[in-house]
Amino acid sequence: MMTIWCKTYTQTYLINNMIIVGIDPGIATTGYGVIEKIKKGNKIECLDYGVIKTSSLLDNGERLKIINKEIDSLIKKYKPEAMAIERLYFFKNAKTIIPVSQAKGVILFTIAKNKIPVYEFTPLQVKMTITGFGRAEKRQVQEMIKIIFKLDNIPKPDDAADALGIAMCLATMNNCYLLKEKGLTD
Amino acid sequence: MMTIWCKTYTQTYLINNMIIVGIDPGIATTGYGVIEKIKKGNKIECLDYGVIKTSSLLDNGERLKIINKEIDSLIKKYKPEAMAIERLYFFKNAKTIIPVSQAKGVILFTIAKNKIPVYEFTPLQVKMTITGFGRAEKRQVQEMIKIIFKLDNIPKPDDAADALGIAMCLATMNNCYLLKEKGLTD
Repeated sequence: MMTIWCKTYTQTYLINNMIIVGIDPGIATTGYGVIEKIKKGNKIECLDYGVIKTSSLLDNGERLKIINKEIDSLIKKYKPEAMAIERLYFFKNAKTIIPVSQAKGVILFTIAKNKIPVYEFTPLQVKMTITGFGRAEKRQVQEMIKIIFKLDNIPKPDDAADALGIAMCLATMNNCYLLKEKGLTD
Repeated sequence: MMTIWCKTYTQTYLINNMIIVGIDPGIATTGYGVIEKIKKGNKIECLDYGVIKTSSLLDNGERLKIINKEIDSLIKKYKPEAMAIERLYFFKNAKTIIPVSQAKGVILFTIAKNKIPVYEFTPLQVKMTITGFGRAEKRQVQEMIKIIFKLDNIPKPDDAADALGIAMCLATMNNCYLLKEKGLTD
């Protein structure tokens, strides 16, 4: 599925619907959320969410192979126009930054192999996008995600909810910015 | 090339020669060193060394694709029995730990895809192995590598010399330990 962007002097808009996959990377648990931005009525729907789990009994290389395979399957299944992933900061998760970054490296590699553009968002950007408040509690963000996507329950586990929030950041981003990133603007 | 290990009650020894590839990971520069442990005369020779460079003009995914491709070529070319890579610590290189870990993740993934066992060594282990002194200067380590491998000059750049040192750690490791890792001992 190819999304075509249209541009006038004053605004940009989607011609087709657009599928976005959001990723919350981790070596033990990688969350994903698949959403669709629908042109008609300017709606956003949740298509799928879940987690990729790897056993700590496996060595790092084997765990990274599973993450690569599952992300690749997800891309082949949903053929997203763009992907979104959490931007990492070393001071935030000092203990886990090495395994999380290793997982993220393999995810970025897998996305690049599939020639999908990818955008990074901080947890602050996710909170601002979902609740309008940068210091919102995790629970508040999750409640809002449930409401936005008209879900019966809060998506579980947390990593899946986080991934939906990350995908949402990209979906609500100013289209002009996307066009610029894609080299379609001046 | 398959290396076969022999075991008696008191000692283990190599039946064949053994090729080892050492890796010093990085997003801009990944060093590699290829060495051969030769049964006859219990010698160790340097077969190759160098660096994989990626341009900062490329995005992360493209850089990781290059690293994957080059490491894969290196494995296909030399068919190592085992590989060695630097063990990372977040407090040592706080600024670069995220991109270095991302590169390492892709390298570990590539090694696992090729079903090669991989061992990790700290910079301290490298210094101890090469010079016998854990607080040796970088220059001293490099001079010793030049002497050990009978090279005309110190291997350049530093990342390539570091990779040879990492490979050397694995080459000089007690064979019993390797056997244990491979599940061949009690």
